[in-house]
Amino acid sequence: VINLSDTQMSQRPGMIELGLGHPDPALLPLDAIHAAATAAFERFGANALNYGFDRGPGPLGDFLTERIATREGRRPEAGQLMVTGGTSHGLDHLLTLMAEPGDTILFEAPSYHLAAHILSDHPVRVVGVPTDADGLDPVAFADRIDRVRASESRPLALYCVPTFNNPTGASWTLARRKAVLEIAHRERVRIIEDDVYRELAYDGAVEPSLWSLSPDPGAVIRFGSFSKSLAPGLRVGWMTADADLVIQITKSGVIDSGGGVNQFAAMCAAAFCMDGGYDLQIERFRTAYRARRDALIEALHAHAPALNVRTPGGGFFVWPELPEHVTEQKLLEAAQLRGVAFLPGGRFYTSTAPKRGHARLCFALYAPDVLREAAHKLGQALRAI
Amino acid sequence: VINLSDTQMSQRPGMIELGLGHPDPALLPLDAIHAAATAAFERFGANALNYGFDRGPGPLGDFLTERIATREGRRPEAGQLMVTGGTSHGLDHLLTLMAEPGDTILFEAPSYHLAAHILSDHPVRVVGVPTDADGLDPVAFADRIDRVRASESRPLALYCVPTFNNPTGASWTLARRKAVLEIAHRERVRIIEDDVYRELAYDGAVEPSLWSLSPDPGAVIRFGSFSKSLAPGLRVGWMTADADLVIQITKSGVIDSGGGVNQFAAMCAAAFCMDGGYDLQIERFRTAYRARRDALIEALHAHAPALNVRTPGGGFFVWPELPEHVTEQKLLEAAQLRGVAFLPGGRFYTSTAPKRGHARLCFALYAPDVLREAAHKLGQALRAI
Repeated sequence: VINLSDTQMSQRPGMIELGLGHPDPALLPLDAIHAAATAAFERFGANALNYGFDRGPGPLGDFLTERIATREGRRPEAGQLMVTGGTSHGLDHLLTLMAEPGDTILFEAPSYHLAAHILSDHPVRVVGVPTDADGLDPVAFADRIDRVRASESRPLALYCVPTFNNPTGASWTLARRKAVLEIAHRERVRIIEDDVYRELAYDGAVEPSLWSLSPDPGAVIRFGSFSKSLAPGLRVGWMTADADLVIQITKSGVIDSGGGVNQFAAMCAAAFCMDGGYDLQIERFRTAYRARRDALIEALHAHAPALNVRTPGGGFFVWPELPEHVTEQKLLEAAQLRGVAFLPGGRFYTSTAPKRGHARLCFALYAPDVLREAAHKLGQALRAI
Repeated sequence: VINLSDTQMSQRPGMIELGLGHPDPALLPLDAIHAAATAAFERFGANALNYGFDRGPGPLGDFLTERIATREGRRPEAGQLMVTGGTSHGLDHLLTLMAEPGDTILFEAPSYHLAAHILSDHPVRVVGVPTDADGLDPVAFADRIDRVRASESRPLALYCVPTFNNPTGASWTLARRKAVLEIAHRERVRIIEDDVYRELAYDGAVEPSLWSLSPDPGAVIRFGSFSKSLAPGLRVGWMTADADLVIQITKSGVIDSGGGVNQFAAMCAAAFCMDGGYDLQIERFRTAYRARRDALIEALHAHAPALNVRTPGGGFFVWPELPEHVTEQKLLEAAQLRGVAFLPGGRFYTSTAPKRGHARLCFALYAPDVLREAAHKLGQALRAI
């Protein structure tokens, strides 16, 4: 039961809300997190409730360091990892500390529209960099850096979601990752890598993170999060970056005053992870979301063949391209009339979107049957236009 | 047992750290918060772990609204209250959204040094406004506003801690509150009221908050917090302000993306409060801290009569004035040699501190016996100089 004054979800009666990028509440591990809260009190005592260590609880940092080292082949060195209040808060905080008024942030287009909203709360300019099927366009990246400099602004960083992108679900190729890193390193432009979907891989191998590939430890600031792989309400994530930047953040006023962010929830996450719950939960999400992705893709092929659909290897989203004559707005109206909603693709571009429209469809929130029904309605909407 | 990689505290062996403004971990209600976490899972289910409502969980907002209405004689109207991630985060977030580069924040001097640190992370100027025994000096306040405007900056707001001030422990008189509000209203300068010590009153009545006194609902942004009255590790507090400002904050990128701040901890706080735990815990803190304050004051009179000590009516701190010939640094060195540390008063001024030095002594962290020992050592240090 969703109480609207308790959560962010707003589900309209009779509407399948494929526009919401939320996990299915039924898949959240209530009992296991409850047990972890109990374990946190037993293990950490009053430390779980006091002002926290500036980089986050030691045991959580240790767990994440080990996990990253094992999975990504690069171990964060001492001082290169800190716990955040989720990627949204981490990004907001980073901008407060790094950005000077008038700086420019380059923005992978398309990528997460609400990251662009966070950026826009700061006195920076946001400039889109286009992508192609392999990932961010490196020629355009270098070109935008030049143009920003020519306009007497500082290209501070590139924001991107290279792995199971929001909204496209696609991942940059390895070659493309290296090409973009090369430019970032040469031009001394940092990369902010939003890597929150990495654990939700449904077809095996995942491309390595930009962070793990970077020859320059200072070039990439990478955000990971428990929001997609455990529970968003915890508001706990992590950041790997160079130690100097971590120090700059942990010595900021808000942490100097309030201590490490979200101490209690971070202590619960620590206990959850230390007791082996994390892998179990990720497997549970993967199994459920893989089936949902497959159900949605299959049903779109069957019921809405006019859509050009690619199968994402992970994450939350499918990103069909609309037929040439169908605008996003027209399809959204026709779809909502039939009880299904999505986010129009234009939202994910900071400037001009491509001519052909897209729809972001989230398959994480609903069971396969509901997704099939949604695809059916989308097909009806397309035929009605 | 304090694990240094888990908490913010750094206690040097053999040193009584009166400089730390921390609660005593032994007084934190571990069992009751553990029970509240259990109740939160039972009551709210998956809502406790999902993206939260932008103003914070409804039940927590309802509890706080009722409590404020009962205690302060003014009920926050619908939309005038939101849950924060503690005052530090709330202030940081507010500055991100309100401040334009080049704005000025007026700063009650002395007041909370780490609030000044938070302000300094933003592209604003910080200008001190002096105080006297009754509170902020209204003539100086008006004068600083004029001077800021004359320097072509915008005086955006006054930051102050009018009730059980950090570091002085003093509270502004009612007349002074009204005089400052009058100027703020006339000059259209907002007041940011840091009101986190309100519940920790040891001698009965507390002056009303500026927020509750303000005839103009938009003039005062007031921060309350569970950090002092429940547990700092929760990172949950609240803000009362005009509904337009609350909307501006709740529609910010970080909340649009991440949902209401610190959802899980806020849900635990909601359950704690709904089950009646809050008043019990406040009474527990009051009883313990009152005894500690009394022990420290009495021992300072007995062992360090050279200090000019006023008894604070609440909060965490005693703020003795040093003898004329004793500098803060000299006393700190002599005190640390004897195993007691404090924060030098100069830290709490953004520009010139008064000639006579002060020491901020926190009486919340230690039991009465330890405070007596600290006063004894301070007396020895004073005599040695």
